[in-house]
Amino acid sequence: MPRKVCVVVTARPSYSRVRSVLAAIQEHPDLELQLVVAASALLDRYGNAHKVIEAEGFPIDRRVYMILEGENLVTSAKSTGLGVAELATVFDNLGPTMVVTIADRFETMATAIAASYQHIPLVHIQGGEVTGSIDEKVRHAVTKLADIHFVATEKSAERVIRMGERSDRVFITGCPSLDVASSALERPPTDLANVIESVGGVGPDLDLDRGYMVVMQHPVTTEHTGSQRQIEETLVAVTESEIPTLWFWPNVDAGSDGTSRGIRAFRERHGPGNIHFVKNVPPDEFLRLVYDSRLIVGNSSVGVRECSFMGVPAVNIGTRQSGRERGQNVVDVDYERTAIAKAIDEQANKGRLESDLLYGDGNAGPRVAELLATAPLSVDKRLTY
Amino acid sequence: MPRKVCVVVTARPSYSRVRSVLAAIQEHPDLELQLVVAASALLDRYGNAHKVIEAEGFPIDRRVYMILEGENLVTSAKSTGLGVAELATVFDNLGPTMVVTIADRFETMATAIAASYQHIPLVHIQGGEVTGSIDEKVRHAVTKLADIHFVATEKSAERVIRMGERSDRVFITGCPSLDVASSALERPPTDLANVIESVGGVGPDLDLDRGYMVVMQHPVTTEHTGSQRQIEETLVAVTESEIPTLWFWPNVDAGSDGTSRGIRAFRERHGPGNIHFVKNVPPDEFLRLVYDSRLIVGNSSVGVRECSFMGVPAVNIGTRQSGRERGQNVVDVDYERTAIAKAIDEQANKGRLESDLLYGDGNAGPRVAELLATAPLSVDKRLTY
Amino acid sequence: MPRKVCVVVTARPSYSRVRSVLAAIQEHPDLELQLVVAASALLDRYGNAHKVIEAEGFPIDRRVYMILEGENLVTSAKSTGLGVAELATVFDNLGPTMVVTIADRFETMATAIAASYQHIPLVHIQGGEVTGSIDEKVRHAVTKLADIHFVATEKSAERVIRMGERSDRVFITGCPSLDVASSALERPPTDLANVIESVGGVGPDLDLDRGYMVVMQHPVTTEHTGSQRQIEETLVAVTESEIPTLWFWPNVDAGSDGTSRGIRAFRERHGPGNIHFVKNVPPDEFLRLVYDSRLIVGNSSVGVRECSFMGVPAVNIGTRQSGRERGQNVVDVDYERTAIAKAIDEQANKGRLESDLLYGDGNAGPRVAELLATAPLSVDKRLTY
Amino acid sequence: MPRKVCVVVTARPSYSRVRSVLAAIQEHPDLELQLVVAASALLDRYGNAHKVIEAEGFPIDRRVYMILEGENLVTSAKSTGLGVAELATVFDNLGPTMVVTIADRFETMATAIAASYQHIPLVHIQGGEVTGSIDEKVRHAVTKLADIHFVATEKSAERVIRMGERSDRVFITGCPSLDVASSALERPPTDLANVIESVGGVGPDLDLDRGYMVVMQHPVTTEHTGSQRQIEETLVAVTESEIPTLWFWPNVDAGSDGTSRGIRAFRERHGPGNIHFVKNVPPDEFLRLVYDSRLIVGNSSVGVRECSFMGVPAVNIGTRQSGRERGQNVVDVDYERTAIAKAIDEQANKGRLESDLLYGDGNAGPRVAELLATAPLSVDKRLTY
Repeated sequence: MPRKVCVVVTARPSYSRVRSVLAAIQEHPDLELQLVVAASALLDRYGNAHKVIEAEGFPIDRRVYMILEGENLVTSAKSTGLGVAELATVFDNLGPTMVVTIADRFETMATAIAASYQHIPLVHIQGGEVTGSIDEKVRHAVTKLADIHFVATEKSAERVIRMGERSDRVFITGCPSLDVASSALERPPTDLANVIESVGGVGPDLDLDRGYMVVMQHPVTTEHTGSQRQIEETLVAVTESEIPTLWFWPNVDAGSDGTSRGIRAFRERHGPGNIHFVKNVPPDEFLRLVYDSRLIVGNSSVGVRECSFMGVPAVNIGTRQSGRERGQNVVDVDYERTAIAKAIDEQANKGRLESDLLYGDGNAGPRVAELLATAPLSVDKRLTY
Repeated sequence: MPRKVCVVVTARPSYSRVRSVLAAIQEHPDLELQLVVAASALLDRYGNAHKVIEAEGFPIDRRVYMILEGENLVTSAKSTGLGVAELATVFDNLGPTMVVTIADRFETMATAIAASYQHIPLVHIQGGEVTGSIDEKVRHAVTKLADIHFVATEKSAERVIRMGERSDRVFITGCPSLDVASSALERPPTDLANVIESVGGVGPDLDLDRGYMVVMQHPVTTEHTGSQRQIEETLVAVTESEIPTLWFWPNVDAGSDGTSRGIRAFRERHGPGNIHFVKNVPPDEFLRLVYDSRLIVGNSSVGVRECSFMGVPAVNIGTRQSGRERGQNVVDVDYERTAIAKAIDEQANKGRLESDLLYGDGNAGPRVAELLATAPLSVDKRLTY
Repeated sequence: MPRKVCVVVTARPSYSRVRSVLAAIQEHPDLELQLVVAASALLDRYGNAHKVIEAEGFPIDRRVYMILEGENLVTSAKSTGLGVAELATVFDNLGPTMVVTIADRFETMATAIAASYQHIPLVHIQGGEVTGSIDEKVRHAVTKLADIHFVATEKSAERVIRMGERSDRVFITGCPSLDVASSALERPPTDLANVIESVGGVGPDLDLDRGYMVVMQHPVTTEHTGSQRQIEETLVAVTESEIPTLWFWPNVDAGSDGTSRGIRAFRERHGPGNIHFVKNVPPDEFLRLVYDSRLIVGNSSVGVRECSFMGVPAVNIGTRQSGRERGQNVVDVDYERTAIAKAIDEQANKGRLESDLLYGDGNAGPRVAELLATAPLSVDKRLTY
Repeated sequence: MPRKVCVVVTARPSYSRVRSVLAAIQEHPDLELQLVVAASALLDRYGNAHKVIEAEGFPIDRRVYMILEGENLVTSAKSTGLGVAELATVFDNLGPTMVVTIADRFETMATAIAASYQHIPLVHIQGGEVTGSIDEKVRHAVTKLADIHFVATEKSAERVIRMGERSDRVFITGCPSLDVASSALERPPTDLANVIESVGGVGPDLDLDRGYMVVMQHPVTTEHTGSQRQIEETLVAVTESEIPTLWFWPNVDAGSDGTSRGIRAFRERHGPGNIHFVKNVPPDEFLRLVYDSRLIVGNSSVGVRECSFMGVPAVNIGTRQSGRERGQNVVDVDYERTAIAKAIDEQANKGRLESDLLYGDGNAGPRVAELLATAPLSVDKRLTY
């Protein structure tokens, strides 16, 4: 009897991260995929990830709306609570052998509690990293609820084990997001003449022939009152660089209202001539876009993780990725327009760098699926010390 | 301006545990107490703790019903989810400076999430212990969400720090439940002639003059399908010992239906002549009853913790306290009537033992309050390694 | 394409009421049954209706725990709210053509809102009756949310229409509970020698050869503080009658704690020699038991509705059925032991009465199914005046 | 002891509607106001009504976030469910003598259930109207849960009574929104030179000296997939009229995403030169703006209700107000640009009309407060037929 693996996807970036895992589960003879799509992955203004998921061949078993409006700290908590209540019902009805939760977004705690409280073995992908902010608390709390850990790096494995987890339950699989990066490299190069049309979005038509940059900047939840100001620093630096820019909209989080507001206000006032704003593109197309770009700017983990593997220079802004291991491709700067401008300038002309396997080799999906099919399952654990 | 300390009490035993802390907060000039009573602490069949709390001089600021019926693993999860949603609203409205959560019951996660997600400094009392079962996961996950840790023992402090918490945020205060034990020792001795009448409950009137024992056995959530069988082993051994027994009803948890059912069924069939069943008594009266008893039997932490301090022999049954540090007063046995009977026999005649300060010196309340008033407050943290 | 009919069953008595409808939907070529079992229908202490349902051949599509512990007015509201949230997700995932809700229990409002707010045509069974108490408010509010009405009597149809509903959306189908009564009459007579053994429960073994009575008394929610006292009046009268009695446990409602407590306390104190307490039996077996009894006592609608059809004398106590149309079989009394005793005496010796078709002819199930398959579907409506 | 009147405000327009009632309760010696602000009244993108409320002197006792993101029919239901659960806790903690709910927005059902299920007398303002759509179902369902009815017109009173409510519980108070209109007439005339600056918002600066029109068009929930197309018809007609226009942003409802999207898309493409978009202004300032305008266009009840009292010509579009009584000031048209344009043309030059007291005399607030202080309170009711 195949193991029923229930994966809960709560956001567009989480989907990108586990897409290769989903595919490998589907193909594995001893596994059966149960796919739950919830939270911002169902929402129009975060790119309707659920539609992408279905279009890419993953039937959705359950949809669960759970995000409250307000985008503040109160609603983050309440959304999570509602998610716990509903996902508990979902798991009770689906009867999975195990549940998989991804990374450290606030609402992943809902998956973790609903599964672990029901004594369903919980698999956590991407524990053991260090970033600060509420994500840090969520990530390690999920580690303490999880029974099996698939981590990206050796350093992460070491941290999970030091937190008291059994070393035979911690597996270094590499980060599955690199699988998408890996397959993105096999796609045909981005068609520069038609990018703008194909990605949609708003803003001027851009001539990308001399190269372009990609920007993606999320609000930082522990600093959420400042997110509007922070985004403006980047907007100014990017505008002044005059490099044609594809700017990707941030995902849902307390404070993204500030970020969104900052972007809207800036567009109203300045109508930046070199920035085209995009809501969403399929993950591999996105990564190919990043791969073909001159550099990436912002605070997305893509700059640190996928771009280290793909050899794309990155300007990483602020605290969101602090603590995360990084390769040679990253330059770190503060929320400050001059520093950002200087770093853009520096990174824009480096060209493609050498690939760094720090976060994986692009083959995590099948590795994870095989472990899901064979790992010993248990739910009772205790600190190892 | 005093710090507003919001304490969330979700169960009768948790109240007992922090009663001295509540009193010390009330008395501290730089602190203001905000008291939230929730979950099983509001329920009749778990002893109406809320009435005791008010009667003992602690005004309740908010009451939150959150426990779903069913007493199974699904409803534990759902209750917690509902609790997160509602406590988020409560904290948003009360605006506390910090929130205090106690120990490791499943629903304490609701307090922890609602506070930490709102960036309210979270204080955790009694982290770092090892017990197995879902409590283990809950306890350490709460540690990872908490900003300040008040632990009972040196060993616990060491564990919390090894999990990656900053050592200057971990304070060994001793367990506040020993404060109640300490004050219980100052109460007049239990009036043996009138105990049965004063505690209420059901079952035969007992002659306690030659001494008596106390039993308290909770369901173990990771083994909940077996809870009815487990309780029967104890019931048989206790009945056969013929020692007059005060048996205290278990608290709410997945599986307590099994425990309750086991007790009810046994009473129907056997009408044990030496057991009187009691729902609830005020904590200090309870501990004085324990102090004046010949021994305590079951799996309550009282046997390990308070009884080590008070020098009362304990028979600890099964896995619930496994991993918890223990003094000389404890004999451990499995869920097995012969072994339980033998251990009862052995412990019943030892008399009062010497006090052991392993879990504290009976003065934790004022120590905790002083730290609440002075500890540095922050919410952004990261692993120390 | 068959219409997908989603029926939400929230309690044991509701299941009995629509069992023939479920069977007729299953058999109808143009209908597909989607069965959701929720609320007290999942709970052990209300008879585990979900097990009966499955055993009787109705596969359950979704299970939703939604009842909060506390059994008071606050938790009735909160349970309903939780039910709305979860049933909304269920309907969104099941995609029914229409949703069926039954009668007037507090939690049926959850079904009504979740369906009507999603513009799914809502079918209400058993509107238009008059009973007082919160049920009255719930019932008529559901009528105002519903699009199609299947009522039991002409008088009910008239009331629904007077409330402003279109007369072509109101159908007098008879009450489907009479279908069970009708088929119960075809069962073999109750085996008096083995009843006690086969129904389980607690209390003395009874000799039923000279006949017996059935008691079923629910708490009345608008009077819930008095439910313990009310039940005692009945307990005394029944005990003193000395007629062998099968007493069926009440269903979940604010106040049933009082009722349950009243029963438990009375049993502890008086150990009534002629009452055997039963938790649950399958509906048709139950009705056959009622049919073969000398009389029914309490405030269940069975006394008014099924017993009028089956010709069984009934003593109806208190206000719960007030306003409900009744046949010749009913004698009404107040919560008062002397009056109850007198009425029991009077009714116990009447023998079987003539059948009265006031509430239906025992063939409502197929009639309802046919209408579900053919009724025009719409969700936009307005007052007819 | 004063009666504690708990008023739940869930949206900006509801606040406008009961502002005079709140003021009259505050001033009444026998009443104490408990103010709960919830749902979209807390949200930035619906104008932060909670800030206006506090600024205008009404301290808020509880804030409850309850709206889920998605703005579709599923989330409307789930938001309502969450609201029931949380408002039940709020009422349990505040202990009001009575609860007041306003009109017919989907989430008002949460207030109605939370209060009526707790047996708190429920007062409904503005029942008995006829509009179609889900509002119609909500409004009459709330009527069936309510104990006291304050209606706007004689016709509404008649309908509430025909639905089976006791005539001595139905009071024609007039609509309190007219009180704001009445006081708006006493404000100094709008300062045309500085309006644009004072209302904020986006779009061109307009010269209002030759007069202007006001537009407010909400999505219609039963037609929500068409809301983008519908709004475009109005946008085109308004643009082509060339009359300077203040366009007010719609409130939260399933489908407002379509409306918002329609407005955004139109602005991007056409940048209409005569439309200035406004999010929110204080209610009396808004009504003065309407009073001083040449006409109002859209589907807001303001066109029908306040403008009939104030004598402002209105073009009412589509079905949202159908069934509502109207005075001479209204011209009705379909969602069709030519028809809308023609009606605008016709109404724009009529000038101020005579006042019509159909919906009240501008003195409802004190009338309602007096009735709140003196009306008999009960919660048990039944159909009058």
